[in-house]
Amino acid sequence: MEKKAKQLRRRGRPPAGSTLPAETRQAIIDAGMVLLTEKGVSATGIEEVLNVVGIPKGSFYHYFKSKEAFVLEVIGAYGAYFDRKLKRHLENKELRPLERIESFMDDAKRGMARHEFRRGCLIGNLGQEVSSLSEKVRIDVEMVISGWEALLATCLQEALSLGYLSPDANPAALSAFFWTGWEGAVMRARMSRSLAPMVLFGTKFLEGIRR
Amino acid sequence: MEKKAKQLRRRGRPPAGSTLPAETRQAIIDAGMVLLTEKGVSATGIEEVLNVVGIPKGSFYHYFKSKEAFVLEVIGAYGAYFDRKLKRHLENKELRPLERIESFMDDAKRGMARHEFRRGCLIGNLGQEVSSLSEKVRIDVEMVISGWEALLATCLQEALSLGYLSPDANPAALSAFFWTGWEGAVMRARMSRSLAPMVLFGTKFLEGIRR
Repeated sequence: MEKKAKQLRRRGRPPAGSTLPAETRQAIIDAGMVLLTEKGVSATGIEEVLNVVGIPKGSFYHYFKSKEAFVLEVIGAYGAYFDRKLKRHLENKELRPLERIESFMDDAKRGMARHEFRRGCLIGNLGQEVSSLSEKVRIDVEMVISGWEALLATCLQEALSLGYLSPDANPAALSAFFWTGWEGAVMRARMSRSLAPMVLFGTKFLEGIRR
Repeated sequence: MEKKAKQLRRRGRPPAGSTLPAETRQAIIDAGMVLLTEKGVSATGIEEVLNVVGIPKGSFYHYFKSKEAFVLEVIGAYGAYFDRKLKRHLENKELRPLERIESFMDDAKRGMARHEFRRGCLIGNLGQEVSSLSEKVRIDVEMVISGWEALLATCLQEALSLGYLSPDANPAALSAFFWTGWEGAVMRARMSRSLAPMVLFGTKFLEGIRR
């Protein structure tokens, strides 16, 4: 996402008509990813998103049917972005399975520090906001997390097969446990402006499952 | 809080002047606790809070200097409410220390089901919103959680002294680990409309620390 944010800044406010519709649409989604990751849906106004991209409010509905349609697209884009990130770590055959989990967590910690604890997890934000969001949004958010659970479960299954976990370990349950705690750790890190909660959760999680 | 919500409903919209200022003020704070626990700060308008209590918008500033001052009072009230709840469980000498933690978690699960996954944790909500909230709010939220950590650490210290934990267990670190994961579990429970994440986190946590 950092790269996208940079592209966005470089893009600045282009004179009207200088970008193609598909590019503008993508720029709106990218800006949405950043803002929803920082503040969530309720605190983010459409106008604020458009300000970042530098297009007038009226044209928003040229690209998206509604705020909900936009939020669904942002969730999809964030899901795809995060999937790539996760796979880069969890499917990295140069590392042993549990080291891959560590490498993902280290990446997340670096990102948290780089953005000075302003950006958490878009999916975690939406989880807290779920009572004010539509059922469609809730289901999409849930699907994204299920995907992460599956990716991590596969990595843990490999760890189990290679004898790094106790033989009665349940990769699917451990994966669900991880994501539950990790989302909590990301939230707490932002609140305390410290990486300590992420470090603590990660360490205890790995300690607890290592054979 | 359920009792308070009921009182609120019973109260209905009283004719102007039928309640004392201190009662009205408390009723606004109680309504704030419910709404902020369901939706967080950004999605909750002052008007919505006042609608529940049945007083006109203009009079809000008679009771509170600003929305921030109101939010700080709501955090204080929620902190005090939750402290009483936690102490009822964690200081219950009729149960063994780890059973007290279970009894707290069971209470939380019942509350989550009773409110049909609409209400999570006000403190967790604010944690996700922290980038859009003031530094004062952030510090107050952090203080509330630190209080919960201290209460649980004391209970875990007792468990350690009685030999229920492995001798090298660190009550303070385990308590921080618990709250991090538990906030994540509450969030995920709301998102998936299922108690499973709370059950899973609680079970794994106790399994992991029991001697």
